[in-house]
Amino acid sequence: MNNKVRNFWPVLNILLPGRGIFSIEILVNQFILTPSYNKNLKWKPERENMPEYSMLGKRIPRVEGIAKVTGEATYADDIVLPKMLYGKILRSPHAHARILHIDTSKAEKLKGVRAVITGKDTKGRGYGVYARYRNQLVLAMEKVRYIGDEIAAVAAIDEDTAAEALSLIAVEYEVLPAVFAAEEAMAAEAPLLHEGENNICARTSLHVGDVDNGFLESDYIREDCFETGRQAHCQIEPHVAVADFDSSGKLMIWTPNMSAFVKRRVLSNLLDIPEQNIRVCKAYVGGAFGGKSEVFPLDACAALLSRKARRPVKIHYSREEVFTTTRHRHGTVIKLKTGVSSDGTIIAREAWVTAEKGAYASTGPIALYLICSQLFRTYRSPNIRYEGVNVYTNKTPCGAMRGHGSIQMRFADESQMDMIAGELGMDPLAFRLKNARQPGDALPLQSAVTSCGLSECIRQAADGAGWAEKRGKMGLNRGIGMGCTTGMTSFNTGHAFPSAAIVKFTEGGAVTLLTGAVENGQGTETMLAQIVAEELGLAMPDITILSGDTELVASDVGAFTMAQTFVTGRAVKLAAADARRRLFELAAPILEADSEELACGGRRVFRRGNPEAGVSFSRLIREGFSRGQTIVGQGCFHPDTRFDVATGEGNASPTYSFCAQVAEVEVNTETGQVAVIGQTIASDCGYALNPMDVESQQEGGVSVSQGFALSEEIAWADGQMLNASFLNYGLPTALDLPPIKTRTVETIDPDGPYGAKDVGEPAVQTGAPAIANAIYDAIGVRITSLPITPDKVLQALKQKRGNQR
Amino acid sequence: MNNKVRNFWPVLNILLPGRGIFSIEILVNQFILTPSYNKNLKWKPERENMPEYSMLGKRIPRVEGIAKVTGEATYADDIVLPKMLYGKILRSPHAHARILHIDTSKAEKLKGVRAVITGKDTKGRGYGVYARYRNQLVLAMEKVRYIGDEIAAVAAIDEDTAAEALSLIAVEYEVLPAVFAAEEAMAAEAPLLHEGENNICARTSLHVGDVDNGFLESDYIREDCFETGRQAHCQIEPHVAVADFDSSGKLMIWTPNMSAFVKRRVLSNLLDIPEQNIRVCKAYVGGAFGGKSEVFPLDACAALLSRKARRPVKIHYSREEVFTTTRHRHGTVIKLKTGVSSDGTIIAREAWVTAEKGAYASTGPIALYLICSQLFRTYRSPNIRYEGVNVYTNKTPCGAMRGHGSIQMRFADESQMDMIAGELGMDPLAFRLKNARQPGDALPLQSAVTSCGLSECIRQAADGAGWAEKRGKMGLNRGIGMGCTTGMTSFNTGHAFPSAAIVKFTEGGAVTLLTGAVENGQGTETMLAQIVAEELGLAMPDITILSGDTELVASDVGAFTMAQTFVTGRAVKLAAADARRRLFELAAPILEADSEELACGGRRVFRRGNPEAGVSFSRLIREGFSRGQTIVGQGCFHPDTRFDVATGEGNASPTYSFCAQVAEVEVNTETGQVAVIGQTIASDCGYALNPMDVESQQEGGVSVSQGFALSEEIAWADGQMLNASFLNYGLPTALDLPPIKTRTVETIDPDGPYGAKDVGEPAVQTGAPAIANAIYDAIGVRITSLPITPDKVLQALKQKRGNQR
Repeated sequence: MNNKVRNFWPVLNILLPGRGIFSIEILVNQFILTPSYNKNLKWKPERENMPEYSMLGKRIPRVEGIAKVTGEATYADDIVLPKMLYGKILRSPHAHARILHIDTSKAEKLKGVRAVITGKDTKGRGYGVYARYRNQLVLAMEKVRYIGDEIAAVAAIDEDTAAEALSLIAVEYEVLPAVFAAEEAMAAEAPLLHEGENNICARTSLHVGDVDNGFLESDYIREDCFETGRQAHCQIEPHVAVADFDSSGKLMIWTPNMSAFVKRRVLSNLLDIPEQNIRVCKAYVGGAFGGKSEVFPLDACAALLSRKARRPVKIHYSREEVFTTTRHRHGTVIKLKTGVSSDGTIIAREAWVTAEKGAYASTGPIALYLICSQLFRTYRSPNIRYEGVNVYTNKTPCGAMRGHGSIQMRFADESQMDMIAGELGMDPLAFRLKNARQPGDALPLQSAVTSCGLSECIRQAADGAGWAEKRGKMGLNRGIGMGCTTGMTSFNTGHAFPSAAIVKFTEGGAVTLLTGAVENGQGTETMLAQIVAEELGLAMPDITILSGDTELVASDVGAFTMAQTFVTGRAVKLAAADARRRLFELAAPILEADSEELACGGRRVFRRGNPEAGVSFSRLIREGFSRGQTIVGQGCFHPDTRFDVATGEGNASPTYSFCAQVAEVEVNTETGQVAVIGQTIASDCGYALNPMDVESQQEGGVSVSQGFALSEEIAWADGQMLNASFLNYGLPTALDLPPIKTRTVETIDPDGPYGAKDVGEPAVQTGAPAIANAIYDAIGVRITSLPITPDKVLQALKQKRGNQR
Repeated sequence: MNNKVRNFWPVLNILLPGRGIFSIEILVNQFILTPSYNKNLKWKPERENMPEYSMLGKRIPRVEGIAKVTGEATYADDIVLPKMLYGKILRSPHAHARILHIDTSKAEKLKGVRAVITGKDTKGRGYGVYARYRNQLVLAMEKVRYIGDEIAAVAAIDEDTAAEALSLIAVEYEVLPAVFAAEEAMAAEAPLLHEGENNICARTSLHVGDVDNGFLESDYIREDCFETGRQAHCQIEPHVAVADFDSSGKLMIWTPNMSAFVKRRVLSNLLDIPEQNIRVCKAYVGGAFGGKSEVFPLDACAALLSRKARRPVKIHYSREEVFTTTRHRHGTVIKLKTGVSSDGTIIAREAWVTAEKGAYASTGPIALYLICSQLFRTYRSPNIRYEGVNVYTNKTPCGAMRGHGSIQMRFADESQMDMIAGELGMDPLAFRLKNARQPGDALPLQSAVTSCGLSECIRQAADGAGWAEKRGKMGLNRGIGMGCTTGMTSFNTGHAFPSAAIVKFTEGGAVTLLTGAVENGQGTETMLAQIVAEELGLAMPDITILSGDTELVASDVGAFTMAQTFVTGRAVKLAAADARRRLFELAAPILEADSEELACGGRRVFRRGNPEAGVSFSRLIREGFSRGQTIVGQGCFHPDTRFDVATGEGNASPTYSFCAQVAEVEVNTETGQVAVIGQTIASDCGYALNPMDVESQQEGGVSVSQGFALSEEIAWADGQMLNASFLNYGLPTALDLPPIKTRTVETIDPDGPYGAKDVGEPAVQTGAPAIANAIYDAIGVRITSLPITPDKVLQALKQKRGNQR
């Protein structure tokens, strides 16, 4: 496709209803069914010392791929239970109001209605990520705080009846003044959403070294202000919950999630029933991106309605409900001040961050910590100070989203890095390499870096993109720019779940892996199956996976902060090795060998180096049976990290992943439209267990970051989201994306399974600054506010021309 | 209810449509919700040495009881999958015919039809219990052999369309002569159903000691001929299968079964796909009684249709299909000759058994072995000879049914025992006690008895019924009679599956038990949960059970031949003890104690005798997490028995259960109708893990045996079953049953879990002879043919009066 055509896609995106979904499906197909269209070039500093694996490092297709693209996969909304009812939720039409009275009597009398609940039917407990920040109720009790706040729920024999019942619920409100911007909300006279200090949800601060002195010693200092907008997750699968509360008090629930165990714990607390009485069951997840990590009112309402009606209840959100009542990415204003020496060494940095977070806390304090702490990870600086504040407004609450927190600071930091390099007359690449984080570095607050391939990522991305030939030389309103970042793995806030796994042999010698891990589309099941196959010398079809169910294993960390490869991967490796040990113990006397001399492959155990003389798995399994043994291996892994979210102290992440990305853009100076014409992304993934999966993560990250950079913007009018549909939200489609070159940097992490680290989050964090920097390279204007819409580009060009006159 | 009313119930049973089902529901309710109405008196020879258990030996209600009686329980027919199709099967209208041509083209063209299959779409593999007897096809290919034989199957968008499609399939037949009786079928000129010898399916024979000489030494010899009819299982839940074959070649199937693992293995062979690609999933089972042990055409057809249509497919059998095309109990003719000394000691026994088995082998050779071998278990005899033959006819195939095989020989043997006692002038009770099997007895063919409470069962049943006061003294056409038996546990034909179990702790200290065991209504899940609770000092609500699913554990023996308490119970006990060991290992250093000094209770581990100073399970579990351990226990048990079904040699059963039953009847000599007015049943269950469950099994057994004795009879016309409905089949209802007194004899089996043995099968084997013997006591006529219908009674009375004249 040539650029001209691509330039018109955003327009088509608005004109064609439903097209957004259609093109995303193309994207999914492409990831699953076809190999990536560029060769994956590996950098292998440690690979010479690695054994040759039979199942790892291979481009193995997704185990669940066919089921997903053929429509066979059962998502939660596909589930129909006998006698199931349909639930719907009544929502506030006001951004801020006191609830004076709720009358549900007419709704209750409507034929076909089986249960109606309001806040009185709940325990009145709040949810949110930390105990003191749990201020969002399942159903509002005294006040509503944004348009969409939940007030009542009904279950009826069909959706139409449920909708009619909602219309029969009468709510009397006293409308209150509302605030929609962070600065406004912090003002002394602003209406308060919650008790406490001036709508401040959380604060964070840090001072390392001596920042004031650092600036005094600096040769060059600059201070800039950056803004980033809200972003919606746009999972193709809307939120849904099917709850079945039986009369013994046990709840089964199917709901897309990122950790079945976290979902269970939060539901247990919200509903005030023991965890053992809740089973979160497996359903396919149609994308999560952080936006399915929390419990939402539909989960709790489906459960409460099921208990009241004594029947299963399904609630699914409309696309509009997903956009307006789940979560957004935090919008931020970041003031960033950096001092450098004349040779380009960073000496001091200071940041002031204001994050606008909507009506409830959600992940508030974590998000704020993550945004601010990104200041000290990617580049070295001896002196650092930051202050951050998270502010309530009468809008949709903000929570976790892929690149949670990090993405905002990366935009500010990476933009300013280019600005400083420009002032110093340095190539931004050289400036980055000079200050880049290195392996073994200590970080502030008792944290440290182990494996680190940042510099190599920078070199690989630059090399892949042809940086040296292109930078400042492209002409035709084209330019090139870079962004870098650091991602955390298994962010351990002291509450993280460990991962446990069970590997169980069937009589014929195939295995079943039991894991609580959740496949959200990131390839977890494929990677875990590869690990089992590798450890036991089996083929992929020999591995059956049961996952995402709280009854299968004791615990799983879940798909938060890139933990599943590192944590669950380790647990699964241990479990498979444990099963192998048991097989070898049975085989050793038969083969007259020590266990250490044995190997396995082709469903047989044999003496290493002598595969002919062996014994079959099935014979060993029957041998075990006769001795009262089954071949069941178990493993558990819990990273030895401790972190206090209140102080920010402790090693929040057992390892870090790194990424550099180079964007090439072409700017239409007549329309202000920016077309991304090339992306090159290099990721330090430790070891690429499945290179195709790493590329999928990189490509998906490019897509999310491009939307964040250029097109995704939430339009508001007095707290009402105006563009809550794929028609006009501005989600990039597969056709909007440029050719993407991917490279993998393998640093062989000392703690990861086979050296692997997770790779998904950094890929989204580098696109926006790379694009902004490329725009500057193309047309010499610096846009400091995301998204970079055509009007901002035209405005900046106008201002530049004005300045030049 | 007085006898008059009860005497009219069989009439009402015919007159009221649907009443059969209704009354059975009352029965189920009663078993689940109310304690038994008579006190359970225990005989405890070994109990003084037993520890006091907290969760065992207790009347604990069924864990799945509420779900079942409220309708919450999800049976396979409740399952609705997205895009599911409905299948139906075309059946032969002929008892014996060659298939010349099948034309499915019109059916295929019908709108809404998604797949049509015939024998050509199958692998043409037969099913049946042993390799050389697998002669029933999923869909007939050359011949049909009974009315109902499967020919083709369709899947369509709804049941009506599927039914219409069946009517559009044209089958051309060449009708063949058919045979319906065993004697007729064995005649030289009889039409042959299968290749081979004169419609003989299987033969069995045995000669122990010197029978001819034994008869020479006998003081009294008698030879009688007995007949037993076919019986239908009458599970309240008809057969159903929901199959979902995905495009990766994996099959998920929900179908009521007695062993998920056996179902998987047979399906794997029939469909020619590896076991690892089949998952038999859990669904509640609404009664099995042996009649859901095999794979049926609906299982394989649903799978094949699902694969062809690429959509899930459900097939459910109508009540008529269940009656006519699943399985019946074998009808038999048994000639029995017994020689005794004048003091009542049995010296020699000889039997000739002809079993009529319908069109296909099914369990043929096993059934025959079981019928014949019952001759040598219950009573001692130094000289035994039998010959048995199993004969094909053009009728519904016969297979396993509760009391499989045993019940027919018990009727013959126990009837003749009374007849001999009469001739010898002995009380039948004394005659039985004189010859009763004793603990430690060797049995023929390398088998042996361990624990045995037969004599005590005889004494307990007699005592409970008031035998001494009533025998021969009741008058008013009332009488009392006894029947005894021996049941096998975990009949190991060399192919039996071992049981494996996993016990997994949740973080809070509750546990999940993973087992492949199948709850068919016999109380397995309750009993297994009690074992886990006992071993870990937990309460019943702390135990969650996942069962009946082939992916959960490596293997389970299944609910055949009373194996689940003995085999799975042992595996679960081992798994729970393994989990406890792991807890104690973590607790020992904290409590500064050796593991052996520790005990657990209330979710805590403490020093034995000092419950105050302890450590909570949840702390230990977190401690384990931090060391990379989860508390997962595993256990496996496989009885060390070997048996060759071809020769009958080997210890077929690791232990035997015993039972004695006393029936009291009142005979209406005008109508010939027999009313059972009292039943007393004493069972040697080893140890009553849950006395309420033992009583349920006893009461259920009384019900099945009463139907077998008096009312259940299949009416035929040229191979067509005429009474394939609850309206006129004659199933007894709860209201037809007399008050039942139950007693438990606890022999503390050396190998059973806590000494327990299974108890379900013997309870059905003793009712028919007890009733026949009671009729003789009441009115002096001996009925040797089952069921004892009013016409047989009137005929016998007429003959008796004729003889007396």
